[in-house]
Amino acid sequence: CHSKPTLVISIDHFGFFENGTFKQRYLVADQHWHQAGGPILFYTGNEGDITWFCNNTGFMWQVAEELGAMLVFAEHRYYGDSMPFGPDSYSDSKHLNYLSSEQALADFAVLIRELKGSWPGARSSAVIAVGGSYGGMLAAWLRMKYPSAVVGALAASAPIWQFPGMVPCGDFHRIVSQDFASSGPNCDVNIRRSWGAIDKIASTGLAWLSGTFSLCAPLKSRPDSVAFKEWLQETWVNLAMVDYPYEASFLQPLPAWPVQAVCRHLGFDSSVSDYQLLQGVSEAARVYYNHTGATACLNTSSTATGSLGFLGWYYQACTEMVMPLCTDGVQDMFEPQAWDFQAFSDECQALFGVRPRASWAETLYGGKDLSAHSNIIFSNGGLDPWSGGGVTRNISDSVVAIVIPQGAHHLDLRYDNERDPPAVRGARALEVDYFKAWVRQARRAP
Amino acid sequence: CHSKPTLVISIDHFGFFENGTFKQRYLVADQHWHQAGGPILFYTGNEGDITWFCNNTGFMWQVAEELGAMLVFAEHRYYGDSMPFGPDSYSDSKHLNYLSSEQALADFAVLIRELKGSWPGARSSAVIAVGGSYGGMLAAWLRMKYPSAVVGALAASAPIWQFPGMVPCGDFHRIVSQDFASSGPNCDVNIRRSWGAIDKIASTGLAWLSGTFSLCAPLKSRPDSVAFKEWLQETWVNLAMVDYPYEASFLQPLPAWPVQAVCRHLGFDSSVSDYQLLQGVSEAARVYYNHTGATACLNTSSTATGSLGFLGWYYQACTEMVMPLCTDGVQDMFEPQAWDFQAFSDECQALFGVRPRASWAETLYGGKDLSAHSNIIFSNGGLDPWSGGGVTRNISDSVVAIVIPQGAHHLDLRYDNERDPPAVRGARALEVDYFKAWVRQARRAP
Repeated sequence: CHSKPTLVISIDHFGFFENGTFKQRYLVADQHWHQAGGPILFYTGNEGDITWFCNNTGFMWQVAEELGAMLVFAEHRYYGDSMPFGPDSYSDSKHLNYLSSEQALADFAVLIRELKGSWPGARSSAVIAVGGSYGGMLAAWLRMKYPSAVVGALAASAPIWQFPGMVPCGDFHRIVSQDFASSGPNCDVNIRRSWGAIDKIASTGLAWLSGTFSLCAPLKSRPDSVAFKEWLQETWVNLAMVDYPYEASFLQPLPAWPVQAVCRHLGFDSSVSDYQLLQGVSEAARVYYNHTGATACLNTSSTATGSLGFLGWYYQACTEMVMPLCTDGVQDMFEPQAWDFQAFSDECQALFGVRPRASWAETLYGGKDLSAHSNIIFSNGGLDPWSGGGVTRNISDSVVAIVIPQGAHHLDLRYDNERDPPAVRGARALEVDYFKAWVRQARRAP
Repeated sequence: CHSKPTLVISIDHFGFFENGTFKQRYLVADQHWHQAGGPILFYTGNEGDITWFCNNTGFMWQVAEELGAMLVFAEHRYYGDSMPFGPDSYSDSKHLNYLSSEQALADFAVLIRELKGSWPGARSSAVIAVGGSYGGMLAAWLRMKYPSAVVGALAASAPIWQFPGMVPCGDFHRIVSQDFASSGPNCDVNIRRSWGAIDKIASTGLAWLSGTFSLCAPLKSRPDSVAFKEWLQETWVNLAMVDYPYEASFLQPLPAWPVQAVCRHLGFDSSVSDYQLLQGVSEAARVYYNHTGATACLNTSSTATGSLGFLGWYYQACTEMVMPLCTDGVQDMFEPQAWDFQAFSDECQALFGVRPRASWAETLYGGKDLSAHSNIIFSNGGLDPWSGGGVTRNISDSVVAIVIPQGAHHLDLRYDNERDPPAVRGARALEVDYFKAWVRQARRAP
């Protein structure tokens, strides 16, 4: 993944008072490109360093030759090196004001225009948007909002319906729990039991917990043990997201089928003591945090790669990307927690000085009504908790869903692997077929 | 046209730092509405007081009963009573920052959501966007950008292609000149000749000119005579726009076929003197400015109704609504004037402290590529200079063009009249047919 000259772009596409510009980073690979009519696969960057997405989207590299395609990976503003106000970009809500999906989509549309206008041979190239997760949402939205910029979009594991009122807030953690339930005997049951066990032991045994989990920062108080449970919960969620069939390093370096590896430590029957149970939980957590064996202690302040921009994403969640999640402890293996918009809003106000607009995303992107759109593939993995907010049934002949039952988070965007389940091979082949059809369609157009 | 409780709406839909709200005005007429499934005709207000558009869109009133439709007229922010910062709204470029088509479209989408959520019986109503001129552009763009908000759009006399590089900049004034050429012998020839005559006489006879034209503010200098010519040019342009077949009052109170009435004073042959010619021009101008006979003197500082917000529109032209116009004096009857983007940009900088972004509208709205959209009618009148930037051929089965050869600016949106040309009757009937089809289509949808 090699960087190209950055694009100088407006900080505010939608207003003219802030007339500053910034340098947006994008990466280009044109070694397989057929200049005469070759398409452009355009990765709509999401909340992180674009080189990391570039390195984790093997599918695009793999199909470039077959399609004679140029690859472009565009970095999302406020992530990686694409900082509208340099080091001040995150300094306050005034500087964060231009961090939004609308501005990012406008960046992509302007970049595509620039590429077509300036890259030799690209003027008539059909551009196909590709993205995963939030990047998949952006790919779909780019096709929906700027259909003359891209002829179609592959939105992989894109939870475009994970907004208020569209899907039950409990689906996400229910899917996480199903993954664990089906990955080893009693696995979900023991995780569900672990929360009470932590509470009991925390009242007297914080030192034991800290030692058993090899925590870098020992737990010192009751609030620490609450944060500890949240960190564990996020760990299980992340594991479900990256439950790939082979050894891989996305959020963390992990073994094949990491949830099964985790569950091997959680097969206890109901006679197990709280201490034994939590000993097992600690070994399970090490599957995620210490697969390489190089981790000296477990750091509860982080659960995944530093290539993701968590603060930026939290700001986005605190403004327009309001995604209700909840647990009930029955259909899922977590402690019951209702979705509390007001508490969330207050937290956003305290942290960023902004309040989320709960219904704006639905108004802006049309909610569940996708009937007027065309040429979008929504792919989802059955193991991926984000599939709960995804499009998993066909909307029309050209807005289609692909479900990969044994797939985790955008497995289809990864390089193929001999251990891939057949469904993901089929999904990738189908996606390429759609790409080719869209390119043909674009050539036929006047 | 009766006002309803205003909607409290975000000043900035696309950012969260400016978290203020303002009251947007909208008008509702529901006397013909069939609550059970009756559609909503939603006028996407443009650059003026919404009551004035309400009073000049008889078509909607006329078809409300046949369709069992509710009528809603939404005022465009920064016009009429819908001022985001009250009396300070126009005070500087900081306060004007939220005057844009994107913000206006978002206003409309939010209002439609509110109406459906709060108006008894409106939840499942199909909403159809209707607009004329810039309001027609907004109607089309609302369908393009928020297709789940509106099932279709009637974009009457909407010059959505009047942007840089899309149509020749001279088409507009060529069409004006054709109207005059076909409305009386020598009419365009004499107007073309009048500019030189004004120049000659201005060198010694400013008082004569001022007296002959009964100007409220006599011309005093060479620059005054340049402004005088610009005022006359705008007068002829406006006349072409409102060349309706019956007495009407839109930009001004006017007789039937006002361009013919004007041309009756401009039938001179080439032997006429400059003084005689300009005497005729002054009588022609009075057709436009003094049809009622009540005008004591002609005011060169204005050419049309005060219901339009010229300053706001000029700001919009100085930011995203960059519409190149030019004249060559050969295919048109005006003095040659090239399109000079840099001079325009400098003027905008001096006036508002902003510079226009010449290519943003094309990137944002997709330029001439409308192939991905559906359910839009573009209607245009052959007499209307804005038809030069309009869509006058079918794009697809559901993005269609209607041309009314003897029609001026959005004639089809007016009440019907016994003097209407047959083409506009046909156009209105066809438009209603499309409306009905869209409503049926929406009812069939899942």
